[in-house]
Amino acid sequence: MPYSPEFIADLQKVVSPGNVLTGKEDLIPYSFDGTAALREMPGAVVFATTTRQVVDVLALAARTRTPVVTRGSGTGLSGGSLPSPGALVLCLAKMNRILEVDRANLTMLVETGATTQAIAEAAGAVGLFYPPDPGSMKISTIGGNVAENSGGLRGLKYGVTRNYVMGLEVVLPDGEVLWTGNKCVKDVAGYSLRDLFIGSEGTLGIITRVLLKLIPPPACKRTLVATYSRMDEAAQTVSDIIAAKIIPCTLEFLDRTTIRCVEDFAKVGLPDCEALLLMETDGHPAQVAEEVSRMEQIARQNGALEVRVAQDDAEANRLASARRSAFSALARVAPTTILEDATVPRSELAHMIRFVNSVASKYQLRIGTFGHMGDGNLHPTFLTDEQNAGEMHRVEQAFVEIFEEAIRLGGTITGEHGIGVAKKSFLPKFAGDAQMRVMRELRRVLDPQGLLNPGKMFE
Amino acid sequence: MPYSPEFIADLQKVVSPGNVLTGKEDLIPYSFDGTAALREMPGAVVFATTTRQVVDVLALAARTRTPVVTRGSGTGLSGGSLPSPGALVLCLAKMNRILEVDRANLTMLVETGATTQAIAEAAGAVGLFYPPDPGSMKISTIGGNVAENSGGLRGLKYGVTRNYVMGLEVVLPDGEVLWTGNKCVKDVAGYSLRDLFIGSEGTLGIITRVLLKLIPPPACKRTLVATYSRMDEAAQTVSDIIAAKIIPCTLEFLDRTTIRCVEDFAKVGLPDCEALLLMETDGHPAQVAEEVSRMEQIARQNGALEVRVAQDDAEANRLASARRSAFSALARVAPTTILEDATVPRSELAHMIRFVNSVASKYQLRIGTFGHMGDGNLHPTFLTDEQNAGEMHRVEQAFVEIFEEAIRLGGTITGEHGIGVAKKSFLPKFAGDAQMRVMRELRRVLDPQGLLNPGKMFE
Repeated sequence: MPYSPEFIADLQKVVSPGNVLTGKEDLIPYSFDGTAALREMPGAVVFATTTRQVVDVLALAARTRTPVVTRGSGTGLSGGSLPSPGALVLCLAKMNRILEVDRANLTMLVETGATTQAIAEAAGAVGLFYPPDPGSMKISTIGGNVAENSGGLRGLKYGVTRNYVMGLEVVLPDGEVLWTGNKCVKDVAGYSLRDLFIGSEGTLGIITRVLLKLIPPPACKRTLVATYSRMDEAAQTVSDIIAAKIIPCTLEFLDRTTIRCVEDFAKVGLPDCEALLLMETDGHPAQVAEEVSRMEQIARQNGALEVRVAQDDAEANRLASARRSAFSALARVAPTTILEDATVPRSELAHMIRFVNSVASKYQLRIGTFGHMGDGNLHPTFLTDEQNAGEMHRVEQAFVEIFEEAIRLGGTITGEHGIGVAKKSFLPKFAGDAQMRVMRELRRVLDPQGLLNPGKMFE
Repeated sequence: MPYSPEFIADLQKVVSPGNVLTGKEDLIPYSFDGTAALREMPGAVVFATTTRQVVDVLALAARTRTPVVTRGSGTGLSGGSLPSPGALVLCLAKMNRILEVDRANLTMLVETGATTQAIAEAAGAVGLFYPPDPGSMKISTIGGNVAENSGGLRGLKYGVTRNYVMGLEVVLPDGEVLWTGNKCVKDVAGYSLRDLFIGSEGTLGIITRVLLKLIPPPACKRTLVATYSRMDEAAQTVSDIIAAKIIPCTLEFLDRTTIRCVEDFAKVGLPDCEALLLMETDGHPAQVAEEVSRMEQIARQNGALEVRVAQDDAEANRLASARRSAFSALARVAPTTILEDATVPRSELAHMIRFVNSVASKYQLRIGTFGHMGDGNLHPTFLTDEQNAGEMHRVEQAFVEIFEEAIRLGGTITGEHGIGVAKKSFLPKFAGDAQMRVMRELRRVLDPQGLLNPGKMFE
């Protein structure tokens, strides 16, 4: 159902005609996000450049009962920014200013459309560090990171986006502008609405500004790669490192399929083997030196075929970027790659990897698995073809088994990608009746008309 | 209004007669918490020992519309566990088992009544570390810590209770038992109800079990004390330490009044001076050695009268316990000590301390100020007498000025003690209309009858 000319004219009045897209060819880029096999055309796309414009767009939407789907760069992997049917897409990528870097209080205030990369660079420019590093950080926006509570490779040691959000400016569906949080390290005045908005996937309010916490950067970082002929040896290496009281900043895993694809793609000299661990430790140089030597020893004791310690930054970056390219490398070898992020307690990881492989065999599917081994966050990636209905059906059946096993092991159906539309059907079993009821009621309180990102998470 | 004999008999059926107190002399210890000048007799006190009993007590309360105030050891400093008029006090201190220490996943599962100290010791027994250390940790319970999102001396480097809560079992007012969270380092499935319950001061549900995150302990710790003839020099020392990219685990401040009281009480050889900084740094021995030397240098450059580096653990413990005794030491010198925890961004701390002193002079009040200088969390403590109505009135006027200034500076009215009843009147100005409305509506969703801890926070 197309929008009325009056509605479009009203939108143009709010944001200027150049900031409203209505032509079909202009809308196509906004009909999907980073999630495979999901598309839906928006009614229109509007770019707001100020909080005031967001308020005015919401007022228009409320008056006309038009659903609103907020997005930044659209890098999400669960369909969180996929247009709901008939929705107005509100794109905030142009609200991308870095408003303040406060070196005394170790904070940064940014607009919601600032990219994660721009934030990391602005922190680095004053000798500080913003740790969250989601895979899409070069273009993902901080508003999206906060709405999805994005993770990244450094989660085990440094935590996720939530751990670096000190304050939020949020426009509520009724047009009220709410500020929650401040520059204080400690603040216990009232319920933490900030934490309720973090990870709420655009269903409770629209994030327009973010106050971030920065930290001093580690003085030194070293990178190791260990290869194995048995996946269990890699898993035991991870367990033994944690038992040795080492918390590496990166502890990543690639399986044979992923290693082959990465090597084809990036040519970094990875051997053909069953499992590869990429390990990074950072901090004081003396500590890093000891940890590297201890990690190397632990990897060898667990039967590693080879342990390579990067000799300089160039080699370290090459190895780290091999891991960062895993998804792109897998995406080259099949028409459709469906990436999931079932997550389990670290102790269940070896079992879970075996289980994922057995499910892939059972349903005759090609799968590459990589992920954040230190924090139990796996990315089993099916290499498939969305044109092949039979295979897509088997992929779905495989995911049902994988998620049920993750839940059975005390894990979660999504470690860092969110529920969106892709994992909606699994949420009730994971969360249970009481949590589902409370979530639905919270949503009703904040968005009684259900205009924000409808059809996502639990709707 | 006393409870009916039937109600008491029903309670006794649920928890056994020995776990219900009704005699006036038995109730008196439950008529107050750690907050000065606040008392209210409960209708009865009931001790639950299982989650099932909590469910049954809540069902009884809901049926009879009896308000329920949950408490542990009652060490709170904002009246959060003060009985509401006519309330049934539900004491969970007997639910104090440590159920599991999971070394592979670095977690601990405990019942709500376990003391912070018992948790810290159980972590230490397996070579792990639970960092939050609220002032009352020897007897405070984890349920209370979570409900108040308690801080402590290590907040700057290690964060507060929220940062160590991975999961919660919560009994909702309608008797449903909800589990939120798990052992996964990353989990973004649905709204973070866990974070909503943390810091909700017993108004949204009753916490019965807590899954905690543990970390490897630092290998080494060193303690320094620096004394100053001018408070600004101490504040500048703190700023310069942060600017040097050092995040100490403790960065505590005592003013002259507090120093004198502590020295009278603890006899650790503190000089008579305007300001004292207690600094601790922990981590790898090489890093600690460098940081100690850099911090000593920074303190001297800022005009410290004396800088003492503790030569051994015994001396370090003596200095740290001097700071830990600040509140007790101040409490000895006046009939009533009213402790507050206005908190400001670190950069505003020197101004705030001067402001607090000027307000004390203006209202002719005796005040000792100490606190967590690294995180801007001050504890201005009025030395007064609750029998002196005129002086108590001036104390209230002084607090109004202090909190308004904290808000004006972008700070908060409570860094770690909570709102409870003590700071209720300041919350609307701090939080603003939109947040107040949302908080009230969230409360209504979770506790439609308003039975849990009524009259607290914003009621």
